[in-house]
Amino acid sequence: MAQCIAVVNAGSSSVKFGFYDSEGEETLLLRGAVEQIGVSPTLSASDGAGNDVVERSWPKDGFTHAQAMTSVLDVAREFLPEGSTVVGVGHRVVHGGTEFAGPAKVSPEVIAVLEGFSPLAPLHQPHNLAPIKAIAQNRPDIPQVACFDTAFHQTQPHLAQAYALPRELSDEGIKRYGFHGLSYDYVSSRLREVAPDHADKKIIIAHLGNGASVCAIDKGKSVATTMGFTAVEGLVMGTRCGSIDPGVLIYLMDEKGMDARALETLVYKKCGLLGVSGISSDMRTLRGSDDPRAREAIDLFIYRIVREIGSLAAALGGVDGLVFTGGIGQRDAKTRREVAAGCAWLGAELDEARNGGAEGLISTDGSALPMWVVQTDEELVIARQTAVVLGI
Amino acid sequence: MAQCIAVVNAGSSSVKFGFYDSEGEETLLLRGAVEQIGVSPTLSASDGAGNDVVERSWPKDGFTHAQAMTSVLDVAREFLPEGSTVVGVGHRVVHGGTEFAGPAKVSPEVIAVLEGFSPLAPLHQPHNLAPIKAIAQNRPDIPQVACFDTAFHQTQPHLAQAYALPRELSDEGIKRYGFHGLSYDYVSSRLREVAPDHADKKIIIAHLGNGASVCAIDKGKSVATTMGFTAVEGLVMGTRCGSIDPGVLIYLMDEKGMDARALETLVYKKCGLLGVSGISSDMRTLRGSDDPRAREAIDLFIYRIVREIGSLAAALGGVDGLVFTGGIGQRDAKTRREVAAGCAWLGAELDEARNGGAEGLISTDGSALPMWVVQTDEELVIARQTAVVLGI
Repeated sequence: MAQCIAVVNAGSSSVKFGFYDSEGEETLLLRGAVEQIGVSPTLSASDGAGNDVVERSWPKDGFTHAQAMTSVLDVAREFLPEGSTVVGVGHRVVHGGTEFAGPAKVSPEVIAVLEGFSPLAPLHQPHNLAPIKAIAQNRPDIPQVACFDTAFHQTQPHLAQAYALPRELSDEGIKRYGFHGLSYDYVSSRLREVAPDHADKKIIIAHLGNGASVCAIDKGKSVATTMGFTAVEGLVMGTRCGSIDPGVLIYLMDEKGMDARALETLVYKKCGLLGVSGISSDMRTLRGSDDPRAREAIDLFIYRIVREIGSLAAALGGVDGLVFTGGIGQRDAKTRREVAAGCAWLGAELDEARNGGAEGLISTDGSALPMWVVQTDEELVIARQTAVVLGI
Repeated sequence: MAQCIAVVNAGSSSVKFGFYDSEGEETLLLRGAVEQIGVSPTLSASDGAGNDVVERSWPKDGFTHAQAMTSVLDVAREFLPEGSTVVGVGHRVVHGGTEFAGPAKVSPEVIAVLEGFSPLAPLHQPHNLAPIKAIAQNRPDIPQVACFDTAFHQTQPHLAQAYALPRELSDEGIKRYGFHGLSYDYVSSRLREVAPDHADKKIIIAHLGNGASVCAIDKGKSVATTMGFTAVEGLVMGTRCGSIDPGVLIYLMDEKGMDARALETLVYKKCGLLGVSGISSDMRTLRGSDDPRAREAIDLFIYRIVREIGSLAAALGGVDGLVFTGGIGQRDAKTRREVAAGCAWLGAELDEARNGGAEGLISTDGSALPMWVVQTDEELVIARQTAVVLGI
């Protein structure tokens, strides 16, 4: 009888899922998503070979994250191989606060602590917790594990995490948590296979996707990263502004009468590639455009990556390797070429032919700064962490 | 008959002044300040040799910046050398917007434009303009020049100045202006004397004082700097937080009910060395304390400088020299030592004996990154710019 681990990644309007065979091979058996919750809820799933196996939809009214989760387990029962049992569910949870430096087995106490972090990530944390609570209530027989985007960064020195705020605010938890930790965890472990002689050196990983950050890793441990208290600090992203002067927000309050919700919508949804280009948040669209505003948005995206790589190299006291991952980092060879050009001062020298590949070394043999592409897999990290925590 | 240029630097509760002999030698003839305006207005002045020559005080009520300016001109008439004439007044003005890439002769039109920048620097710009307006009204015979903290940075590439905000906000002028430009202007010109073979290379200048920033300069021109739209972005300062996640402000609005004024007071007055230490905003006090919180504040100050130097080195595509200036940069050898240690990865190697000096080279002969101390003199830059604009 096959034992399966479910991986769940729930957002504001979607629940993405995957089911892995937990016995040895980490084989993906079924994956899919419930999308458009609140608008036009639809579940679609494909098997391990990528063939579509089911699509279902529901009326929007009354269809909650809890029902989405029930539907996912129903589909699993129907479409997983005969005799499969779900022995654990691992959830992506954006915020583990200072309490969790690794994945945690879910209990009522853990849920209560995680709900306390919702003010730190109001746009994500409540949605991450909804399916956890639904399973805890409806299927208390299935053990659950929370896997955190913040946990990987708990190894950072205090100075990398601190803001120069009054001590009482810092003590309350206003500090740089950093995110994308599941991806950095996966990529740094994968680097042991791709470049084993560099895995214990000073490495900078650029996770470039719709959300984007860069992380400085020394001997496999996070030393600094660009995202901070929230996932809006640091790089230019699809629709997020990245680092801006706090005085800009005060100015917008004074001059435009913007309140907290308006500022939140602005910095999360209307800035970044979309705001600068006025065209799209999608790098592929911008690459395909000959509008100079598209070019400017891309140039700013690249410029800020190059600047932050310099800052992280300082945090590391030098850098021995640069890794690209995430949707843009994996697929957009031009982004890699442009970042590499901006890192020539660090010794980066791109090999154009290698840069066309999907994974592995992309720098010349003589490059003082070796560079790689690694395909990230956050779901697999969640499955692995879940298996470890549950002793499967 | 000696021709004098007056230099005026007006803040919220003070008007600092200096009178320079404009004929050749740039000799300082008289300097002083009206302080505690609104509390207990007091004028004190010393002559070019540093001897106190006068102290006066007034009741607080009704004593304005305009009266302070009149008093300064009265004192000049009494205490400048016999037969001296004030042929021009140069003013420090924090914000020159995008309009002014250099000093500007004051006219009613210029004053109107500069008043339009007050929302960009509400804590400084109105105070800078008060004495300009007072002289324009009471002594229209004296020509005036506005010298800007922003102007030096107008050479920066667009990408260094841009935030990833919606285009309409950027077009309104929400961008990184940068400040301390008068100091950077002076120091980069002084570097031609201190280290003539490096003046046209890639130089990073750290202006470290109660306000603090770092600037990347290539061939004498500003390429990037850490202060941004306001003087609160970038480094940890005496009471300013430097760069923080915009999400922190939204959190404080939501969770603490803070409004624009409360946030402004927080980020400008309660953070930085003062906020982290809970003891003092003054580096000398913190250096003298054995409280671990004082040490933590200093460590964070240094850490952020080192990180930003890495970021600016990336903006330059490498760095050929590092210069320390400003109150802390000039006087605190320990700060220089600690920053240099954090820049060892860039080749910095401090010479301990040289680091004890007041000006000049402080790195070893073998240091791949040469380092200097330069004594800044913003007043002298204002006097020079004023002389140039007025053709004196």
